[in-house]
Amino acid sequence: VQSRLPQVGTTIFTVMSALAQETGAVNLGQGFPDFDCDPALPAQVAAAMQEGLNQYPPMAGVAPLRERVAAKIEALYGHRYDAGTEITITAGATQAILTAVLCCVHPGDEVIVLEPCYDSYAPNIELAGGTVVRVPLQPGSFRPDFTRIAAALSPKTRLMIVNSPHNPSATVWTRAEMQQLAELLAPTQTLLISDEVYEHMVFDGQPHISAASIPALAARTFVVSSFGKTYHVTGWKVGYVAAPAVLSAEFRKVHQFNVFTVNTPVQHALARYMADPAPYRELPAFYQRKRDLFREGLAQTRLKPLHTQGSYFQLVDYSAVSSLPEGEFCLWLTREMGVAAIPLSAFYAGGFEQGLARLCFAKRDDTLQEALRRLQRL
Amino acid sequence: VQSRLPQVGTTIFTVMSALAQETGAVNLGQGFPDFDCDPALPAQVAAAMQEGLNQYPPMAGVAPLRERVAAKIEALYGHRYDAGTEITITAGATQAILTAVLCCVHPGDEVIVLEPCYDSYAPNIELAGGTVVRVPLQPGSFRPDFTRIAAALSPKTRLMIVNSPHNPSATVWTRAEMQQLAELLAPTQTLLISDEVYEHMVFDGQPHISAASIPALAARTFVVSSFGKTYHVTGWKVGYVAAPAVLSAEFRKVHQFNVFTVNTPVQHALARYMADPAPYRELPAFYQRKRDLFREGLAQTRLKPLHTQGSYFQLVDYSAVSSLPEGEFCLWLTREMGVAAIPLSAFYAGGFEQGLARLCFAKRDDTLQEALRRLQRL
Ligand SMILES: CSCCC(=O)C(=O)O
Ligand SMILES: CSCCC(=O)C(=O)O
Repeated sequence: VQSRLPQVGTTIFTVMSALAQETGAVNLGQGFPDFDCDPALPAQVAAAMQEGLNQYPPMAGVAPLRERVAAKIEALYGHRYDAGTEITITAGATQAILTAVLCCVHPGDEVIVLEPCYDSYAPNIELAGGTVVRVPLQPGSFRPDFTRIAAALSPKTRLMIVNSPHNPSATVWTRAEMQQLAELLAPTQTLLISDEVYEHMVFDGQPHISAASIPALAARTFVVSSFGKTYHVTGWKVGYVAAPAVLSAEFRKVHQFNVFTVNTPVQHALARYMADPAPYRELPAFYQRKRDLFREGLAQTRLKPLHTQGSYFQLVDYSAVSSLPEGEFCLWLTREMGVAAIPLSAFYAGGFEQGLARLCFAKRDDTLQEALRRLQRL
Repeated sequence: VQSRLPQVGTTIFTVMSALAQETGAVNLGQGFPDFDCDPALPAQVAAAMQEGLNQYPPMAGVAPLRERVAAKIEALYGHRYDAGTEITITAGATQAILTAVLCCVHPGDEVIVLEPCYDSYAPNIELAGGTVVRVPLQPGSFRPDFTRIAAALSPKTRLMIVNSPHNPSATVWTRAEMQQLAELLAPTQTLLISDEVYEHMVFDGQPHISAASIPALAARTFVVSSFGKTYHVTGWKVGYVAAPAVLSAEFRKVHQFNVFTVNTPVQHALARYMADPAPYRELPAFYQRKRDLFREGLAQTRLKPLHTQGSYFQLVDYSAVSSLPEGEFCLWLTREMGVAAIPLSAFYAGGFEQGLARLCFAKRDDTLQEALRRLQRL
């Protein structure tokens, strides 16, 4: 069989998690918590199942959950989406992004991504028949480089994908940057996917600037987020897309022929659980404490941590320790030092090498401490 | 925004379910049970959640569930798939089919579908850039017409999609027919998707012939099935694909960048629940009784039921009652007579009219009886 994705192997997150399991390494690779969710949330799923809410929900998601999402976005970002026509519940953010790409990218269209970026974006674009146009973020700071973005825009640019808080660099875009993006796109027909799955992991009082909060962007954007990341249930695979009705209508045309719809009892449970905003309001402080604990520990190692403004990832410069390429360093770190990490090069097409590895700090304190003990041996 | 699917509206199943809800009609339209699943199954989900199985599972699905699926297929159909490399758990059968199409259909490839067919197949092929080649099933019997299939095969035919037990016609392919298909494809490079989601709904002692059971087919086939249909939990959105390692590898390349993976506690629950084969062994008799009850009732109406060899659907000829086109008849039946049905024309590209409507009998006996009372007024 001739491959549709000849360049693609198994996603690095799967490879490193499997290796971590095999070798007994502390898994700071793939991004997921090793602590459990609030037990109130599974209790709501159990209740919904017991109430018999086990058959197909509406294609776009159950109304109470769409209404909660719309209300939350309005409260946080000041934009009112119509729950009926502008919010769609998805089987996670990755499915949301593929579906958004498939619904608007035509063969031959160009799509701008900012490198480094999540490894699904480029294959998603290729599956739609689009051309991936890679624009690097600024070296070191990983901030958007608007001169280069402007130069990459062409009449064929159908879509651009941005992500803040940023995986893997932990950079958070400012309001000025989001506004600059809006101005750059204003004269164009370019649509936007704003991957905001780490929206509640922003530190030091810096706000998350949703594309929904900038009217000129909201009008052209698929805003994507993830319940799994916000509520510590990455394995439940549930997220959403918020987009103007005209974009949501196209999104749903594809969505209905992809997953059709999303787990019914999980949707009802989330709708009920979201009645209380405390869980996501507490999230910045919860992860900031873990970040600080982790960075204090890293200061006792020969790894040099870069900034962490948001997300639950920490880039570290390992050049004082090793001159191995990133992929080999991460394999060595996992096998020999017992800590799994993700090579930053996995977030670039060309395997760009900077001597950086990504560590995830969404872990129990004792897990982080054990990892730090091992990293101190470097 | 320029649509990728300009021909497509909201899927008929969503439209008719919404109308049924709005009008209070008995919903025999969209295919799902109105009775609940075995309470032992949600209990297993609740247990898995409580055990903390709430984070990302392996990309291809949890090993115990893949092993159960492999063992079940071997027991029923005599083909041994490797659980590690040949079984992938999906977010329902619809997602499995889109993913299979995307992973092997290249722009310009031809894909044969047999009409009438499920409404996702053609848009799936179009999203991959393929050309849909429609071959009609034999009129009236809805059996495969191998002369026409042979005529449609070309060097560009990358893929064919078949479905038995068949939605919407309730026809079940014989072993001779599956074998004839195998012979027809033998000299070609054509791959096959075998949509077998109704595999346990076969009546009158006729066996389900899985593509897995014909070695020459198994080697080129993505076999797709659905836990939701088998265990009365259509809203849980979980299915699987079984395919040779070389095809599964391509499938997983796309799958990992579509949904990435599927709800963890649901997967563990299904693995545990499948220890007992009784639930699916009892399914043919369970649905055959409902079919018989429903057909006996239909005999008291002016609707003429066609054959029902498998699936939980019943086609009825309404020409003695109305000369409306199928779409209008089904709207009228829902609004005026209080019974929602699906027009058969929704399963054809060109809106072919035969005076047939599809009714779903996966309903409580009292629901079927109420629907029959209403249909007797015709
Ligand atoms: C979908 S698996 C990867 C999880 C994640 O977002 C990451 O580790 O970057
Ligand atoms: C995915 S909604 C439709 C359910 C179904 O398979 C049908 O009604 O044909």
